[in-house]
Amino acid sequence: MVIGEIRPSVDGGRRPAKAVVGEAVPVRARIFADGRPRLRARGRLLPAGHSDGWPAALTFPLGPAVDDWWDGHLVPDRVGSCKFRLEAWEDRFGTWCDDVGRRLATGVDPAPEVDEGWALLRQTLRRLPGETARSLVRAATELAGSGVERELAFLLDEKLQSLLATLVWRPLATSPPRPLWVERPRALFGSWYELFSRSQGSDGFQPGSLSATADRLPHLAALGFDVLYLTPIHPVGVTGRRGRNNAPLALPGDPGSPWAIGSELGGHTEVDPELGTMEDFRGLMARAKEVGMEVALDYALQCSRDHPWVKEHPDWFRRRPDGTIRPAENPPKRYDDIYPLDFSCRDWRGLWDACYEILDHWARQGVRVFRVDNPHTKPVPFWEYLVDRLRLEHPEVILLAEAFTAPAMMRELARVGFSQSYTYFTWRQTKDDLVAYARELADETADFLRPNFFVNTPDILTAQLQEGGEGAFRSRLLLASTLSSSYGVYSGFEHLERKALRPGSEEYLDSEKYQYRPRPDHGDPGIEGLIATVNAARRAHPALQQFRRLFFHWADHPDLLCYSKTTPGLEDRVLVVVNLDPWRAHESMVHLDLAELGLGPDSSFALRDLLDGAEYRWQGAHNFVRLDPARAPGHLFAVVP
Amino acid sequence: MVIGEIRPSVDGGRRPAKAVVGEAVPVRARIFADGRPRLRARGRLLPAGHSDGWPAALTFPLGPAVDDWWDGHLVPDRVGSCKFRLEAWEDRFGTWCDDVGRRLATGVDPAPEVDEGWALLRQTLRRLPGETARSLVRAATELAGSGVERELAFLLDEKLQSLLATLVWRPLATSPPRPLWVERPRALFGSWYELFSRSQGSDGFQPGSLSATADRLPHLAALGFDVLYLTPIHPVGVTGRRGRNNAPLALPGDPGSPWAIGSELGGHTEVDPELGTMEDFRGLMARAKEVGMEVALDYALQCSRDHPWVKEHPDWFRRRPDGTIRPAENPPKRYDDIYPLDFSCRDWRGLWDACYEILDHWARQGVRVFRVDNPHTKPVPFWEYLVDRLRLEHPEVILLAEAFTAPAMMRELARVGFSQSYTYFTWRQTKDDLVAYARELADETADFLRPNFFVNTPDILTAQLQEGGEGAFRSRLLLASTLSSSYGVYSGFEHLERKALRPGSEEYLDSEKYQYRPRPDHGDPGIEGLIATVNAARRAHPALQQFRRLFFHWADHPDLLCYSKTTPGLEDRVLVVVNLDPWRAHESMVHLDLAELGLGPDSSFALRDLLDGAEYRWQGAHNFVRLDPARAPGHLFAVVP
Repeated sequence: MVIGEIRPSVDGGRRPAKAVVGEAVPVRARIFADGRPRLRARGRLLPAGHSDGWPAALTFPLGPAVDDWWDGHLVPDRVGSCKFRLEAWEDRFGTWCDDVGRRLATGVDPAPEVDEGWALLRQTLRRLPGETARSLVRAATELAGSGVERELAFLLDEKLQSLLATLVWRPLATSPPRPLWVERPRALFGSWYELFSRSQGSDGFQPGSLSATADRLPHLAALGFDVLYLTPIHPVGVTGRRGRNNAPLALPGDPGSPWAIGSELGGHTEVDPELGTMEDFRGLMARAKEVGMEVALDYALQCSRDHPWVKEHPDWFRRRPDGTIRPAENPPKRYDDIYPLDFSCRDWRGLWDACYEILDHWARQGVRVFRVDNPHTKPVPFWEYLVDRLRLEHPEVILLAEAFTAPAMMRELARVGFSQSYTYFTWRQTKDDLVAYARELADETADFLRPNFFVNTPDILTAQLQEGGEGAFRSRLLLASTLSSSYGVYSGFEHLERKALRPGSEEYLDSEKYQYRPRPDHGDPGIEGLIATVNAARRAHPALQQFRRLFFHWADHPDLLCYSKTTPGLEDRVLVVVNLDPWRAHESMVHLDLAELGLGPDSSFALRDLLDGAEYRWQGAHNFVRLDPARAPGHLFAVVP
Repeated sequence: MVIGEIRPSVDGGRRPAKAVVGEAVPVRARIFADGRPRLRARGRLLPAGHSDGWPAALTFPLGPAVDDWWDGHLVPDRVGSCKFRLEAWEDRFGTWCDDVGRRLATGVDPAPEVDEGWALLRQTLRRLPGETARSLVRAATELAGSGVERELAFLLDEKLQSLLATLVWRPLATSPPRPLWVERPRALFGSWYELFSRSQGSDGFQPGSLSATADRLPHLAALGFDVLYLTPIHPVGVTGRRGRNNAPLALPGDPGSPWAIGSELGGHTEVDPELGTMEDFRGLMARAKEVGMEVALDYALQCSRDHPWVKEHPDWFRRRPDGTIRPAENPPKRYDDIYPLDFSCRDWRGLWDACYEILDHWARQGVRVFRVDNPHTKPVPFWEYLVDRLRLEHPEVILLAEAFTAPAMMRELARVGFSQSYTYFTWRQTKDDLVAYARELADETADFLRPNFFVNTPDILTAQLQEGGEGAFRSRLLLASTLSSSYGVYSGFEHLERKALRPGSEEYLDSEKYQYRPRPDHGDPGIEGLIATVNAARRAHPALQQFRRLFFHWADHPDLLCYSKTTPGLEDRVLVVVNLDPWRAHESMVHLDLAELGLGPDSSFALRDLLDGAEYRWQGAHNFVRLDPARAPGHLFAVVP
């Protein structure tokens, strides 16, 4: 018996696949044997920290699908490193039933076949519960002498087959174990909101504060956000500080880029005194907890020229022959305010430890989510070290990789163990591109890469948003929040901020990276209503809390995109139709794969639009949709049972 | 630096990938590093039996392609178990050149950059040949004081970059080694002809002979065949013998199925005395060698009821409760003349050894090719045992798996080590099906599964051949012989034999499996001319001797299929257009991917049709083709340089 092509599997089982507590992780494998016996299979999940070994592992069922594929789900119940394996065996009595049925059709003598059936049944007796075995024997005794036909009917009885199918026959084929890394649910599902703390409560000239940030939490919680992501809150360097719109000279009072971390006031483990104290930070954490949110910090491994490390550890920076340190660069961009760390310096152990200690410091303050800045510019072995150590000491910590880099590196960082990754979502805008990319994420890379679809970032204001008006903001929000289980919004999006630095640039004009950007309440909620609605739908619908069970249905119109998401048992079914054109209304037939939705052919079913509460009744696979961006970006239907 | 997603790779490197001596095996991997340094990479091939280890391994170049893929080829030089690995490093001087170019564009001070360049150059001096180093130093001395501009020009000189690019900089990233099993070239390329020895020289009532078979060899060699595959030549069982057309009763004189192996005259290691002696067999082998062909035997692990093993090893057969052995079956078919072996019997070691000894016996008679009957009905671990032992003791032996079974099992047998596999080719008939299937074989499974496209077998006379007239025979022959590097013909095909047992059946009427089928020379060569022509083309064109470098070009007409095959260096380029409709002439524009053929856009190029010698001149990508099945099944073009 062969058990092969097992999924989830990363690097042929050499690295752990990803899962979260309570997630129904799809498991599949090819299971087959010579001849075509009736097979049965199951999986075993050995939870983290379980010392009793495989016999004590939880089992989960596997069922046959086409082409020798077998499918099932495992559901991890705790955070940590666990493993699963698959087991298969022949249901020998079932095989006999299949064979004898086929043989009798060819006209063989039934008597020796029946003998074989009895012999097989005899073998099973002592493995059945006593009462069951005794009643079987009684029934068989009554049959004595009643003829081959009746004996055959007795043996081929469906109930007997079902009973014996519950037995695990030996020998048992077992697959090698596969590792899984199980995280808490937030690693899979969450709505993120990104802001600059220093803009909260600022008047545009004076810095805001952590306590003003804390005051915004109830509003963000009411909008349904789960994670508040703060851009760096550490002291900002002075030497080489950039001015507004990245000017090479800063005016007095300009705050500089918060990613130029470190000054004489301290480095990565300090709170910028302009924003508040560590006490204020703890207050922010407490407020977040009160409103059911958590706080994510930025983890940017680079230093301003004034970072304490520059003096304390000059050997952690690469020097030019003239003894100077080359500032960071990504030509044609130069970051005169930033020194890159040299991860392969002679004292790399000291540096790597210090980098870990930053995370450890904040984790001990209760921070359990980090957004990691530019991980692709640091060596992969460093991330392996960091992730392995985190998993041991802070297994609840979630890392989001900011790697908008080449596909190979983005995937490698995910394989190494980042919990989530920013993706290319912002640049996937046409129907074909969205379908191809979402399918890749839902299947090809799903075992190791969890997407987090940010609709914008301080660095990415796409031309689509600059030019597409409110319609573009609405449809991108609906796409991000329903295609991916994790998604994010950088502040300003809800108010349709869309002025670019210059034509052709994805940089914001008056970018918050270089100045305070207070956003006073002018009474216009922008698209906050839609945000609150989609976030509420996401919390109410488990189908939206995962990204693997995604299916695209055909819509005739090239600007209408139709897809559904479902839970494995089809308890929850969500159907989405999005108008990708921000300006014009379009109408189209939509052709559903009803089986995918657990609906019978030609059945009639009710849909409730979670965006506006409207109810619809559809009939069969082919239905009409009209979407006007002036009214709504799309339909977000719950299929009503 | 990361070296990942390496191909060829089977089961994540746990099993060897396949190659043959002299084959240019494509190697690819994703190679990348943090930042975007200028990388260089190469592969190392450690041939079989090489004891000096990696430093002594052969190297082969790898070059960059899109998305961090790197491509190259390795060429094994001997049969056996070898391994390869990949190495990558940063061309640090090249990276400096790239960086400094970008930096200068941002207006930085060039002086410290130039200092860095000199420092880097200084490091390389002692690794350059003495004279090169000295001339570099002389040139540098002359520059002294000439200014930063001239120094920069010196350092950025293309020739200097090329010179330093030849250095292998440390540290070197190396991939784990990957295993390869290298076979002789016949495992990849060969034209097979299958016949029943007992029909050769028969009058329809008396058996033919091995010596008459030997007399056919010069003709088969003239047709360009490489392998003569003989259906079983062993003594045939008497008990339960099947009559003509698989009748349950045989008449006296009926020969029975040759797959019912064994009688009181002996088993799998004997020649049926009706066909001749072992001496005759050796004569056949010698004649084959003279004409440049080799002989393949059938390896069918099953026994007639009269096989010596039935008496000598009753424990090698599974018994029913009444003590009888159940005959082989594949319901609704019953094989009353055949007993299956029980590969998991108590004495499985004895049985497995005996099975191996059959191969060993014939291998010692010089047989180096076996066609393995129904391997999917025997346990996979048995094949692992057999293949591993063969590789040690008879590494030159080639095994063709007759597994027309489910895809998972077919692939598993290939992974386990069968040299070749029959495929689903006979049933892939439409353009879409052929394209999808050929692409799967040329890419997805190419590392471990080598196809052998038989156009027919004694069991498979497709409806397409029954109904498609000569046109179907011609187009199928052209497809098989040009899509796959190995292909085969079962005798009768060349004379368009196509009478089925009954409508809807793929069985031949008066099947040679159950009777002598002499084929007297009526003077009609059938399609032997076409066979000889395609076989000659196959021998002349290395592009046709491999199946991986296959590319489908677009043809507008749904019945015209266009594809090209090329050698890696484009030394040989073959372009094929086949008319899939056996009856009607069709015309179509054909749209070539000229780059794939190594031709410039809009270039003019000559084509010579290897089927009829006609010469054509085409211009650019879009050209007109008309194919009339009454004249030819297609074009088999050589691109003339």
